[in-house]
Amino acid sequence: MNPLTFAVIGGDMRQAKLASLLAADGHAVSVFALEQAQPERAMIADSLNAAGKGADCVVLPLPLLRDGTALHTPLSDMVLTLDAVFTALKPHQILCGGRIPEIAQKQAVERGLLLVDYFNREELVIANAVATAEGAIQVAMQSTSTILLGTRVLILGFGRIGKVLAHRLRALGVSVTVSGWSLEDLAWIQAYGYKGIRSDRLDGALGGYDILFNTIPHLMLNAERLRTIDRDTLCIDLSSQPGGIDFAAAADLGLKTIHALGLPGEAAPLTAAAIIRDTIYNILSEQGIPLC
Amino acid sequence: MNPLTFAVIGGDMRQAKLASLLAADGHAVSVFALEQAQPERAMIADSLNAAGKGADCVVLPLPLLRDGTALHTPLSDMVLTLDAVFTALKPHQILCGGRIPEIAQKQAVERGLLLVDYFNREELVIANAVATAEGAIQVAMQSTSTILLGTRVLILGFGRIGKVLAHRLRALGVSVTVSGWSLEDLAWIQAYGYKGIRSDRLDGALGGYDILFNTIPHLMLNAERLRTIDRDTLCIDLSSQPGGIDFAAAADLGLKTIHALGLPGEAAPLTAAAIIRDTIYNILSEQGIPLC
Amino acid sequence: MNPLTFAVIGGDMRQAKLASLLAADGHAVSVFALEQAQPERAMIADSLNAAGKGADCVVLPLPLLRDGTALHTPLSDMVLTLDAVFTALKPHQILCGGRIPEIAQKQAVERGLLLVDYFNREELVIANAVATAEGAIQVAMQSTSTILLGTRVLILGFGRIGKVLAHRLRALGVSVTVSGWSLEDLAWIQAYGYKGIRSDRLDGALGGYDILFNTIPHLMLNAERLRTIDRDTLCIDLSSQPGGIDFAAAADLGLKTIHALGLPGEAAPLTAAAIIRDTIYNILSEQGIPLC
Amino acid sequence: MNPLTFAVIGGDMRQAKLASLLAADGHAVSVFALEQAQPERAMIADSLNAAGKGADCVVLPLPLLRDGTALHTPLSDMVLTLDAVFTALKPHQILCGGRIPEIAQKQAVERGLLLVDYFNREELVIANAVATAEGAIQVAMQSTSTILLGTRVLILGFGRIGKVLAHRLRALGVSVTVSGWSLEDLAWIQAYGYKGIRSDRLDGALGGYDILFNTIPHLMLNAERLRTIDRDTLCIDLSSQPGGIDFAAAADLGLKTIHALGLPGEAAPLTAAAIIRDTIYNILSEQGIPLC
Repeated sequence: MNPLTFAVIGGDMRQAKLASLLAADGHAVSVFALEQAQPERAMIADSLNAAGKGADCVVLPLPLLRDGTALHTPLSDMVLTLDAVFTALKPHQILCGGRIPEIAQKQAVERGLLLVDYFNREELVIANAVATAEGAIQVAMQSTSTILLGTRVLILGFGRIGKVLAHRLRALGVSVTVSGWSLEDLAWIQAYGYKGIRSDRLDGALGGYDILFNTIPHLMLNAERLRTIDRDTLCIDLSSQPGGIDFAAAADLGLKTIHALGLPGEAAPLTAAAIIRDTIYNILSEQGIPLC
Repeated sequence: MNPLTFAVIGGDMRQAKLASLLAADGHAVSVFALEQAQPERAMIADSLNAAGKGADCVVLPLPLLRDGTALHTPLSDMVLTLDAVFTALKPHQILCGGRIPEIAQKQAVERGLLLVDYFNREELVIANAVATAEGAIQVAMQSTSTILLGTRVLILGFGRIGKVLAHRLRALGVSVTVSGWSLEDLAWIQAYGYKGIRSDRLDGALGGYDILFNTIPHLMLNAERLRTIDRDTLCIDLSSQPGGIDFAAAADLGLKTIHALGLPGEAAPLTAAAIIRDTIYNILSEQGIPLC
Repeated sequence: MNPLTFAVIGGDMRQAKLASLLAADGHAVSVFALEQAQPERAMIADSLNAAGKGADCVVLPLPLLRDGTALHTPLSDMVLTLDAVFTALKPHQILCGGRIPEIAQKQAVERGLLLVDYFNREELVIANAVATAEGAIQVAMQSTSTILLGTRVLILGFGRIGKVLAHRLRALGVSVTVSGWSLEDLAWIQAYGYKGIRSDRLDGALGGYDILFNTIPHLMLNAERLRTIDRDTLCIDLSSQPGGIDFAAAADLGLKTIHALGLPGEAAPLTAAAIIRDTIYNILSEQGIPLC
Repeated sequence: MNPLTFAVIGGDMRQAKLASLLAADGHAVSVFALEQAQPERAMIADSLNAAGKGADCVVLPLPLLRDGTALHTPLSDMVLTLDAVFTALKPHQILCGGRIPEIAQKQAVERGLLLVDYFNREELVIANAVATAEGAIQVAMQSTSTILLGTRVLILGFGRIGKVLAHRLRALGVSVTVSGWSLEDLAWIQAYGYKGIRSDRLDGALGGYDILFNTIPHLMLNAERLRTIDRDTLCIDLSSQPGGIDFAAAADLGLKTIHALGLPGEAAPLTAAAIIRDTIYNILSEQGIPLC
């Protein structure tokens, strides 16, 4: 591995662990605004300037901002404006952050800084889907008083998470049904040996399952549909806020629901950090910076 | 289902849930010494006599006794001697309990009572191994900061739990190595596509794993062997007390260990109850009592 | 199933079996130019006009034409020009054929006929990939003197066939490596637990495999690369003519190669016919013709 | 590998390939009565004495005898009596043969020769079951016009072959039902996620399957039961002669049956030879002859 210099500024436990992983790979790593985490092996910088100076790559948080202007720094008492961060950096440095708002990207361009969104990268999104699917299985195991073997599970959606989740559940002896929007989806669902159902024909087809996972970021389970679900079906929503379940209606009906958000960071923070690391390596490699 | 009359006397949450499951199958169920659980659908009896009277089958706890003489009644304030229980019952009734000591069996015989140990039944032990294996995966997921995909796992022992655990882990994308005592075990390990290692050749072969599961009820991991395990390997012991790991030595070495006991009841109490129900149905069927 | 009237004109065993399958579903089916097959349950028509007259749907061969002008009729001595076929049909009928050349499509449009290519449909292509993957495993089993368990297999390409083939081989205990072009492909390859390799970095990485499957329709294995393959590696090419292996160079090197073409029809003709049937049902359904 | 001297006398292609495998491991190997095979790397001996002289281990055929007295030598024109073979050997040599009749064992003992039956060894029988299961899948693929995905398969018997066959078929997306004799078997069948059926309750339960594999060496499918099987069910018998199907009755009913015998040697002769080699190594190791 060709040793580089990294600065990790702000972020949550994923960025803290990322700093340690980068250092473990032999890179020089300085951190700033992560003082509540104390990442192993990394040097703690005194200032933004000290952290950023000389860094080949500057790693910024995911999400980048806590509100419109300040960096996301949940492990620090400091308030860092994006402006202050950008001021401390130079155009030859590569900046990597996650969920970058358009306005921030615009500011970077105006200053001649290269700001890359690692959360936009397909390889990260797929790897996160794997971590989400495993986390979803952990949540299901923790939240039921039965084993998974022999249970009947319905997964709404055959996107990235649905694909991995179905694969793992079937391997655990679950009877898996997946809903898909297109004939193409349904052909793949059949190819892997799952039962398939059209996502636009779910009305009247939601009974008879022990667990129901939603992966679709639309209101899939409204009050009317929730009424057709068995009383003891566990509903786990994996789609991001506001989710695909009418949680209030579900509570009224006495249905057990879980909105499992941010599973990669929750259930597997070290893997989540390693995924960001691998993606940043890919970004650097594409920018002509050899890592090995 | 041919409706019968059951009495469930004492026991923990498994027996409480069992009472509900039996009632849900249409049987008449009365319970005693389970007052902290209030099992749904079951009738609460006023006395041992009221509970036992007329029952075709009397379900006793697992383990049967809390000490040498009193029934295991963790969900009750009552103290019931085995003698008192036996006095309330009649020879034509079938008694089922778990982990029955020889002395208790002898007393039953003297009174002409048929006392069958459901924990001795192979079908129950296998089904419990399945629940234990799933529970072990849940414990591993909860206790690591990574996902299971791509991890390297060593399972000590290819008995019932080792067989199911290896099967499920490989399905989750884990690189599975299993230790077996005999050439027969190793042939099976290979047949299922796992890596194999002789259980008598573990010295010097314990490095390089992320997780190590022990299923063998002997001291497999003594201080000397523990010293050869990687510092960040998680050791999960699934064997019953006192377990197969020198936990004190492991703590001195800074190794992370977990002794996961009673996983079926812990992680999947409803499944644990259903397993006992199915086994009791088998026992009744073999005693000539038709259930359907 | 809402009974319709079908005409199946020309084609190979797949169309012949398709005629039987359609009849088995309750439809009225007449066949023409399939006289060497004698499909069960179908009526044999005397003429193109008799066959086509009154048919809601006319099924044409895959590929549609044997040369530029005549219908593909390997199971018949007749020569049918496309012109003659089109003349026998009416605009309200739905025509389905496979691999339709542009010129044929143009002719249909000029006559006001609706001609749909079922071989263009994604659900058919995916289902065919499944049949191809299973067929490839059969070919590998037949062509080796070892079992698949424990063998090391490299699959070039992670398209439809690569995806299904990798899935099935891993399930059979094979050590599976897959090459992919993009970081996205490689992320998916890892997500399913296979080893991954960049398709643009295959030079020097082709040794150490027992079987090598090519699914990429480019010259992946030229003479130079073939020289780096182990002498006893079996090379199976699943890509369509001219394939991705320099077969002459492979023969010179003494390498064992197989070009497995048309596997769905070869290894599983009934499944191949059922796939076409399902696709035609989808086409009809999208044209507003209800089947059930 | 500690180089030894082997003599391989008689046998079929498995013994011929075994000779090559032993030589490839660095051992000195002489062969006799295998002249139609010409195994690579092995020395062809002129006489029984020349072959056997100085051999640490003498490998004899499987089965040992062609009839009561002569060695099984299908790849040779020679007739070798067991007596002649034994006369050429010395007590310090280890003799390994397969399916050794009692009378042959008695003769060996009388001459002070150690004759070990490698076909009796559990590790060989299990590894053969794996090869049989894979071969059975190959036979099924070759003998049907459909793919396996989505088919419904019944396996009679959950012994070694049944276990591996069920495992592989489920992995290929087959809906697997297995019959078992005991509650223990049925618990294992359930543990792996297959459907189970009692082997003593098969009457009236044999309909609705696409393929039926028999692994039980008893007449499981008599005329009466065959009458209840679907007309297009393929019946594959994997049990040794005379098999478990009334083949004459099946032919009368128009059922398609296959009696697949000797699959390891048929479908995977090199694996079959490697299995014997590994077993002989185990035998030698247990006799105190170190191989590495």
